[in-house]
Amino acid sequence: MAGNIFGNVLRLMTFGESHGPGTGGILEGCPSGMTLDLDLIRNEMQRRKPGQSGISSPRKEDDEFEILSGVFEGNTLGTPIGFLIRNKDARSGDYEATKELYRPSHADFTYEEKYGLRDYRGGGRSSARETASRVFAGAIAKQILMKHGIAVNACVTQAGKIKLQIPPENLEFSLAENNVVRCPDAQTAGQMIAYIEKLREEGDTCGGVITCLISNAPAGLGEPVFDKLQAELAKACMSIPAAHGFEYGSGFAGAEMKGSAHNDAFIKVENGRIRTATNFSGGIQGGISNGMNIYFRVAFKPVSTIKTNQKTVNHAGEEVVLKAEGRHDPCVLPRAVPVVEAMSALVIADFLLRNSFVKFD
Amino acid sequence: MAGNIFGNVLRLMTFGESHGPGTGGILEGCPSGMTLDLDLIRNEMQRRKPGQSGISSPRKEDDEFEILSGVFEGNTLGTPIGFLIRNKDARSGDYEATKELYRPSHADFTYEEKYGLRDYRGGGRSSARETASRVFAGAIAKQILMKHGIAVNACVTQAGKIKLQIPPENLEFSLAENNVVRCPDAQTAGQMIAYIEKLREEGDTCGGVITCLISNAPAGLGEPVFDKLQAELAKACMSIPAAHGFEYGSGFAGAEMKGSAHNDAFIKVENGRIRTATNFSGGIQGGISNGMNIYFRVAFKPVSTIKTNQKTVNHAGEEVVLKAEGRHDPCVLPRAVPVVEAMSALVIADFLLRNSFVKFD
Amino acid sequence: MAGNIFGNVLRLMTFGESHGPGTGGILEGCPSGMTLDLDLIRNEMQRRKPGQSGISSPRKEDDEFEILSGVFEGNTLGTPIGFLIRNKDARSGDYEATKELYRPSHADFTYEEKYGLRDYRGGGRSSARETASRVFAGAIAKQILMKHGIAVNACVTQAGKIKLQIPPENLEFSLAENNVVRCPDAQTAGQMIAYIEKLREEGDTCGGVITCLISNAPAGLGEPVFDKLQAELAKACMSIPAAHGFEYGSGFAGAEMKGSAHNDAFIKVENGRIRTATNFSGGIQGGISNGMNIYFRVAFKPVSTIKTNQKTVNHAGEEVVLKAEGRHDPCVLPRAVPVVEAMSALVIADFLLRNSFVKFD
Amino acid sequence: MAGNIFGNVLRLMTFGESHGPGTGGILEGCPSGMTLDLDLIRNEMQRRKPGQSGISSPRKEDDEFEILSGVFEGNTLGTPIGFLIRNKDARSGDYEATKELYRPSHADFTYEEKYGLRDYRGGGRSSARETASRVFAGAIAKQILMKHGIAVNACVTQAGKIKLQIPPENLEFSLAENNVVRCPDAQTAGQMIAYIEKLREEGDTCGGVITCLISNAPAGLGEPVFDKLQAELAKACMSIPAAHGFEYGSGFAGAEMKGSAHNDAFIKVENGRIRTATNFSGGIQGGISNGMNIYFRVAFKPVSTIKTNQKTVNHAGEEVVLKAEGRHDPCVLPRAVPVVEAMSALVIADFLLRNSFVKFD
Repeated sequence: MAGNIFGNVLRLMTFGESHGPGTGGILEGCPSGMTLDLDLIRNEMQRRKPGQSGISSPRKEDDEFEILSGVFEGNTLGTPIGFLIRNKDARSGDYEATKELYRPSHADFTYEEKYGLRDYRGGGRSSARETASRVFAGAIAKQILMKHGIAVNACVTQAGKIKLQIPPENLEFSLAENNVVRCPDAQTAGQMIAYIEKLREEGDTCGGVITCLISNAPAGLGEPVFDKLQAELAKACMSIPAAHGFEYGSGFAGAEMKGSAHNDAFIKVENGRIRTATNFSGGIQGGISNGMNIYFRVAFKPVSTIKTNQKTVNHAGEEVVLKAEGRHDPCVLPRAVPVVEAMSALVIADFLLRNSFVKFD
Repeated sequence: MAGNIFGNVLRLMTFGESHGPGTGGILEGCPSGMTLDLDLIRNEMQRRKPGQSGISSPRKEDDEFEILSGVFEGNTLGTPIGFLIRNKDARSGDYEATKELYRPSHADFTYEEKYGLRDYRGGGRSSARETASRVFAGAIAKQILMKHGIAVNACVTQAGKIKLQIPPENLEFSLAENNVVRCPDAQTAGQMIAYIEKLREEGDTCGGVITCLISNAPAGLGEPVFDKLQAELAKACMSIPAAHGFEYGSGFAGAEMKGSAHNDAFIKVENGRIRTATNFSGGIQGGISNGMNIYFRVAFKPVSTIKTNQKTVNHAGEEVVLKAEGRHDPCVLPRAVPVVEAMSALVIADFLLRNSFVKFD
Repeated sequence: MAGNIFGNVLRLMTFGESHGPGTGGILEGCPSGMTLDLDLIRNEMQRRKPGQSGISSPRKEDDEFEILSGVFEGNTLGTPIGFLIRNKDARSGDYEATKELYRPSHADFTYEEKYGLRDYRGGGRSSARETASRVFAGAIAKQILMKHGIAVNACVTQAGKIKLQIPPENLEFSLAENNVVRCPDAQTAGQMIAYIEKLREEGDTCGGVITCLISNAPAGLGEPVFDKLQAELAKACMSIPAAHGFEYGSGFAGAEMKGSAHNDAFIKVENGRIRTATNFSGGIQGGISNGMNIYFRVAFKPVSTIKTNQKTVNHAGEEVVLKAEGRHDPCVLPRAVPVVEAMSALVIADFLLRNSFVKFD
Repeated sequence: MAGNIFGNVLRLMTFGESHGPGTGGILEGCPSGMTLDLDLIRNEMQRRKPGQSGISSPRKEDDEFEILSGVFEGNTLGTPIGFLIRNKDARSGDYEATKELYRPSHADFTYEEKYGLRDYRGGGRSSARETASRVFAGAIAKQILMKHGIAVNACVTQAGKIKLQIPPENLEFSLAENNVVRCPDAQTAGQMIAYIEKLREEGDTCGGVITCLISNAPAGLGEPVFDKLQAELAKACMSIPAAHGFEYGSGFAGAEMKGSAHNDAFIKVENGRIRTATNFSGGIQGGISNGMNIYFRVAFKPVSTIKTNQKTVNHAGEEVVLKAEGRHDPCVLPRAVPVVEAMSALVIADFLLRNSFVKFD
């Protein structure tokens, strides 16, 4: 059983290698009768595409999509939405030199071990190019959420050792789109950009952290005991290429706290609504949303493609030197922001739909 | 679509409320013809059960299990294994006082929001009592793995602010069972136990971190692009009650590193086997195991049940005071060790079985 | 991937061998807040249990069930409902003589080929004893349907060559419970009973046909293109032991008709409701219910256990004679009626829940 | 939860409306390292495509496919195979007249009831045009089966009341491709063709029966208790547009037989292989293949599109007359033969892969 399907009611299946004819997928479970905002989808695709700034890969892909089904006269039919994003700037010749060797911390070796062969051009299926399909589907999920007033926003809060020290609930996400690194604080963004540009010159790369916040989600989302809200969010985010860590609410820092300090007291606010005084729970209790902001952080390792000669071995087990070629991002974080949002939107929309038949009316 | 099924080929479904007749489940997909080691299962159950030491809940449950099907004359039949663990020391009366109010950072409020009603006795389905079923099934998964020489070991490496600073691959897991806190370093274990006993006297609680290492797993486990090995491990661990964070390999610390330092160079070792010089990848590349040790860390928040009066609200939205009653653990980490192992074993065994039909012979 | 889970939103997983400790299962997805009618469940169990009449197996099983979870103070919690039906009259010794040989048209040979070993006592997992779990779960599904005014009824319309020639929509299902063969026409029932009693004396068995009708189901149930209503009903019914055929609406007879005669004209009836003048479609068009009666027929082969010596081979491949022993039904149809109803109710309830999130409000 | 995914290990998801940009799908789980025979796929597509003979729809579609991923240098990668079949001869204007009314026995009414809107052009998603994707995927499944020596063959054995009375195991399937109606007996084929041509002149249509036989399948395929081999075959075939009945082995006729006549005696044949003397079981016992030929029959209703004026109602509930337009088949059976084969091949290949991890080696 392969792993190319995501979700339960809102189900996405994707396909595509980096240098094949294209990537794409099928999304089923989107409710019928929804007017699709194609500009919103295009905008999300633009946020992810390569070549968008001086700190991203120079590969030229417009990431234009074609919707093949499921939409009629602008509205969703309730039938599966097929979509295709053709690869355009696929320079397969660039990869001849690496076809026999295993690039360090890439998936060349593991794909070959698992499948016995691999499409060596640009990483094939293991390339982050497949995230274009995630962003397309996530843009539809976002529209489902918007109908319910729910917003999903992410931004870069760490690049290398440069960190933005603001509580997640105080982040001004709208400001993140003002700069190429997608950090909402202009000063920190400037430091990050300078750092990444320096790395690019050195031929090196860095990792970082993306913080995501989901606002206005209703209480009741999440399905105990295995499909808890945080469990599905963790799976969703950890399936993104290069993700190495996930924490929600108090996260790893919460492990140091005492229960008396960590407990979120319930309080009654205006119009009888119940909420919590603090939110160390990150909006989730017992695996179910409690109506507060849901927030979490995702750590990404540094990009593996560097412009320095590296020792490695080839298919025959011989020691060889990998001379860096190809196009890459010195820091993948800015382009990963819409991917984190997309995966989160898919999770929340899926739970929203799953929750619709839990209680008898 | 509720969330009580875990796994794809090795599939576990569980049921059970904390103070109902019992908890249990059904495990399907265990290969036929395997002689079950019941003592091994019993031992795992003992490691999880309450009342096992002075720093765990005094609830008295033997956690004896009954196997209802799927095993004949000691061997697995290939048919589903039904099992039942009856609740014995269920003192429902203890919970009358809390039936109308919402305990802070518990799931009382969210269950009621989601389902419209709840079994208020000991948290009902949201109680960690359901993890007994996970440990039972995980003990069978461990036996599947043992047939392939794979071992799954976890231990406590942090309790509150007390941390064991040893690289995961250097931990001596066998020593962890020598003390009640399941920390493999005797000195650190002593500090942890003293800290937890002090908290218990104060009526307070703490969180911590569990480190898990899977050794001798073959290359090839994990199913891109959504069911990556790290994604399923993250989901598995984040579905455990109180888990708040997951990281594998370099994790959050890796986000601070440069690519040139983080890349794991491939090297050839004796008998032609290819491995990596370092292991910042945590044994996983492109979502697939590479034959190196797989390791990760899981953060747990402090236990929510404390022995201090807390302000909260009740079902009617009135402010009330929760007087702490009932039995609880000052630190859940020692008992969570076998649960982390069980969930990890279920994931690895599932991937092992999923991997059996990927390549043509 | 084994096959012990049925359904998508309302999901049933079962376990149990014929002569093991018991059979049972877990049902998840039943909406919360539903008051369970235990008498209704007991009544369904009584309709299926052995020993209920002179024409059924003399095995003595009360088929009493224990609900282990998911119900609190009489109401469903929204959590999984675990249940257990213990085997009582399990005479394993009866089967020593057949442990090495393959009973004709039983599953002894195929289970051994598939799994390498088998529980030879009474057919183990392949025994129809597992249908007790289906009936338990179906009785809950029926209650979900009753909340929506939907009824599921089946009866025996053929035993051997004795056929009741009444259109499905004219059957008076309530009369079927007046006789032991569950045929709603008293005269035909009498013929069937006489025939079955004669077969029993001869040590022989017969097959037959069960007709099922689902009334008052809303339009809109069924999920194209693979999970069509008729496709899931077919799978549900064909998974019942001994089922050999399924047809809905005009069925095999419809294959002989012309389109001009077979088409169901739409007409407008009082209060603006649209219905069809005829119902050769069996209430399903394009895989989706159209609001008319849904009806279908299920053919069952004759019971394989006969009281005549039969030639066969044993595990070693030697020719041997099977001397008929054990307890069995000369005709399984009467006891299969509640099983067909149960499986149909599970399908319809599942589709009802799946349909709740298809359209935007 | 919509229903556009089929299979468990070999999983197919499809999309596409009859007059949208195209139909297609994604197939995952095909083992890696298999050299794809594209001509075989093309040939299967030709057998299904419209306009192939005087007795099929005159719609002109070449049904050329584009493989978008999963294949590299002619070999399967183990990654998902995306494919696209563009619609070319889509004359949407033809359907303006029917956009407001409900064609009898079509899915216009049920789609509108379910989804609130519909793509009225040629039936949209409910059109049999979606079966092109099934045939593409089935052609790959056939190649997996060929590697194991398994063959799947079907032919037309009934058109209207004209029946070919030959036992399934005696059919010469290769002869069926010699005539446009795909009946292996030349004389019967002639009668069928004459009958269908006469119906076409009358503007009428007929149904029929397809018989399918799977030879050389190993014992052990099928997953009790719900995913029995016959249950999945029934679902697969009943999901094909216009299918109204399914029976395997003795089928409905078996319901009339006595157990003593129906039981298939086990016998030992040369080289120690065990088989049965008769095969009323249709190669399946207890839901698992026994190594004998697997055979079954699928009944199809007459095509609903006829060239006669029909009374119906429109969206507003008004009585209107449907004047037949558009292109259609007087008998869909010949084109359904490769669809039945495709669905059967998908089922068998899926079970073959599912069976690979059942037993410990």
